[in-house]
Amino acid sequence: MSEQQFGRIALIGIGLIGSSIARAVKEKGLAGSVAIATRSPETLQRARELELGTEYHLDAAEAVRDADLIIVSVPVGASGSVAKEIAPNLKPGAIVTDVGSTKGSVVAQMLPHIPKGVHFIPGHPLAGTEHSGPDAGFAELFRGRWCILTPVHGTDKLAKKRLATFWETLGSKVDEMDTEHHDKVLAIVSHLPHIIAYNIVGTADDLETVTESEVIKYSASGFRDFTRLAASDPTMWRDVCLHNKDAILEMLARFSEDLAYLQRAIRWGDGEKLFDLFTRTRAIRRSIIDAGQDTAAANFGRPGDSPAE
Amino acid sequence: MSEQQFGRIALIGIGLIGSSIARAVKEKGLAGSVAIATRSPETLQRARELELGTEYHLDAAEAVRDADLIIVSVPVGASGSVAKEIAPNLKPGAIVTDVGSTKGSVVAQMLPHIPKGVHFIPGHPLAGTEHSGPDAGFAELFRGRWCILTPVHGTDKLAKKRLATFWETLGSKVDEMDTEHHDKVLAIVSHLPHIIAYNIVGTADDLETVTESEVIKYSASGFRDFTRLAASDPTMWRDVCLHNKDAILEMLARFSEDLAYLQRAIRWGDGEKLFDLFTRTRAIRRSIIDAGQDTAAANFGRPGDSPAE
Ligand SMILES: NC(=O)c1ccc[n+]([C@@H]2O[C@H](COP(=O)([O-])OP(=O)(O)OC[C@H]3O[C@@H](n4cnc5c(N)ncnc54)[C@H](OP(=O)(O)O)[C@@H]3O)[C@@H](O)[C@H]2O)c1
Ligand SMILES: NC(=O)c1ccc[n+]([C@@H]2O[C@H](COP(=O)([O-])OP(=O)(O)OC[C@H]3O[C@@H](n4cnc5c(N)ncnc54)[C@H](OP(=O)(O)O)[C@@H]3O)[C@@H](O)[C@H]2O)c1
Repeated sequence: MSEQQFGRIALIGIGLIGSSIARAVKEKGLAGSVAIATRSPETLQRARELELGTEYHLDAAEAVRDADLIIVSVPVGASGSVAKEIAPNLKPGAIVTDVGSTKGSVVAQMLPHIPKGVHFIPGHPLAGTEHSGPDAGFAELFRGRWCILTPVHGTDKLAKKRLATFWETLGSKVDEMDTEHHDKVLAIVSHLPHIIAYNIVGTADDLETVTESEVIKYSASGFRDFTRLAASDPTMWRDVCLHNKDAILEMLARFSEDLAYLQRAIRWGDGEKLFDLFTRTRAIRRSIIDAGQDTAAANFGRPGDSPAE
Repeated sequence: MSEQQFGRIALIGIGLIGSSIARAVKEKGLAGSVAIATRSPETLQRARELELGTEYHLDAAEAVRDADLIIVSVPVGASGSVAKEIAPNLKPGAIVTDVGSTKGSVVAQMLPHIPKGVHFIPGHPLAGTEHSGPDAGFAELFRGRWCILTPVHGTDKLAKKRLATFWETLGSKVDEMDTEHHDKVLAIVSHLPHIIAYNIVGTADDLETVTESEVIKYSASGFRDFTRLAASDPTMWRDVCLHNKDAILEMLARFSEDLAYLQRAIRWGDGEKLFDLFTRTRAIRRSIIDAGQDTAAANFGRPGDSPAE
């Protein structure tokens, strides 16, 4: 148990991210009470069965009443309507944050609804899995991962400090950047990889010369790595694409340009160019492993696919 | 221990694949003696220290003398010169196979050198990791994975049966197809994924607006998945690109066409198209997991990145 940090926390949205926060808050005793709201009775019922909070609401406005910290964990396209819904019941001095994967659009949607005296501090924990819903969450999800805050101009220092401490207690390291930079960084480290993964899986699915059952059988030779990202939640990723369009299109253009260069090297049999690129990319993986952001074990340490220890 | 299957096995090339075969052969007692050959004294010395065989040679021609089964496990670009080197010492009735990731080119390079009376049966175990060299191998590498044989016209049935049984004893399931189809299938399930992974890691490395250290720090949000494939051996992958050019260029063209369509959907905010694609790709992962070709655990079951059991 850590110390209680907030009298009352409200979690709006209780899927993978919301329920992981709920589990960590409970495990560490960070709040006196935890009000949970989600839009469907089924998800709410599941949250109740999992005992993720102390109160359960279908009405988000009810859940935020008297809350000191409100965390909105819904697809980014729904941020605006959630903000509008909860605004009338937000208590002065409360902190409102979110976990959305895009930030420029979330700020544009939510900020106009936030009443004076309420601290709105957008956030994004860079942690997740390909699974969704309240059952997919786990308390350790944020451990060793970064959480990026993108505070707007004039944000209260103390409120920001309290939110940063909250994420640190969940095991995260906290960074701060402006929304625009966040959206560019995420376009390359997260959005482009997901889009490319979805695309290649789609391509494989559409071929006439190679059957789907062949793709599935022989996937361990590389393809399967892409299917994990391509199995992520379609609503979340549709919203990310629609809400970080400019940065994503910029990264896609760069990617395609580089791919054309690589394609040309293959066509002309330029082994040296290929060798150079294939050598350069190795160093990045080494750095990621050294930074504690991936495992050094072969095949990601997949059970049965790497040397037994 | 299984039964001894060959009096004498020669392994030419003792990196990840060769040394995994060596370990499995030793563990299961599949051969009376195992002669190992590799081109560098350093790798040979390491093979000796790891006790991977019963004899060690720098001269591949020496190693194949009296061997009943010869397995060539070198980058595909070196297949021709190895075949030429060993040809004079191949014993009548011996089986020569390889493990190269491309097959049309390997057949074109090796077949002309194979003497009459020697059975040449090209093969490709669809199993691997991103690591190389004799230390990276492990006996279980082939377990539950497919091995594709691409026999040439008129191949001796008994020889083929013996080779298939050998791979099955190593835990593989054996399939047969013609070289051309193999090269198309592998272009989509393995070569394209590797090339795309190398490309995206290269793109990320080259940006001006996002630093390399940001890419590394925040990689757990998707990017890191690609860095595993992009950390594979540059020589092997240069050779694959040079030796399966036509099929790879065909798949690259399909991929780029699909990406242009996706890019357009993003530009025009066509949420429905995006949602459709992102939904369709989920089913493939499910099938891959059901086929035992990947783990269902979140994040590939990476230690610390998925719910504890
Ligand atoms: N998944 C990741 O890896 C990851 C990582 C970092 C950040 N994020 C961000 O975290 C947020 C939540 O993602 P998640 O993975 O937790 O999603 P999830 O598991 O699918 O859960 C989504 C939650 O939002 C609710 N919701 C869905 N559509 C809604 C709408 N139109 N209006 C109001 N509520 C709605 C759902 O309610 P019902 O079930 O009741 O319909 C559910 O409670 C997203 O903004 C995403 O970008 C995700
Ligand atoms: N890695 C995979 O995931 C995987 C999967 C399936 C099939 N394959 C195929 O398996 C084969 C071997 O791959 P690997 O991963 O085992 O490679 P590796 O670990 O890098 O080992 C390569 C072996 O080939 C030798 N070699 C390298 N260049 C050579 C040359 N020009 N002439 C003669 N010998 C040479 C090396 O000798 P020295 O160390 O003495 O120089 C070493 O013994 C390749 O054809 C590859 O396409 C690989």
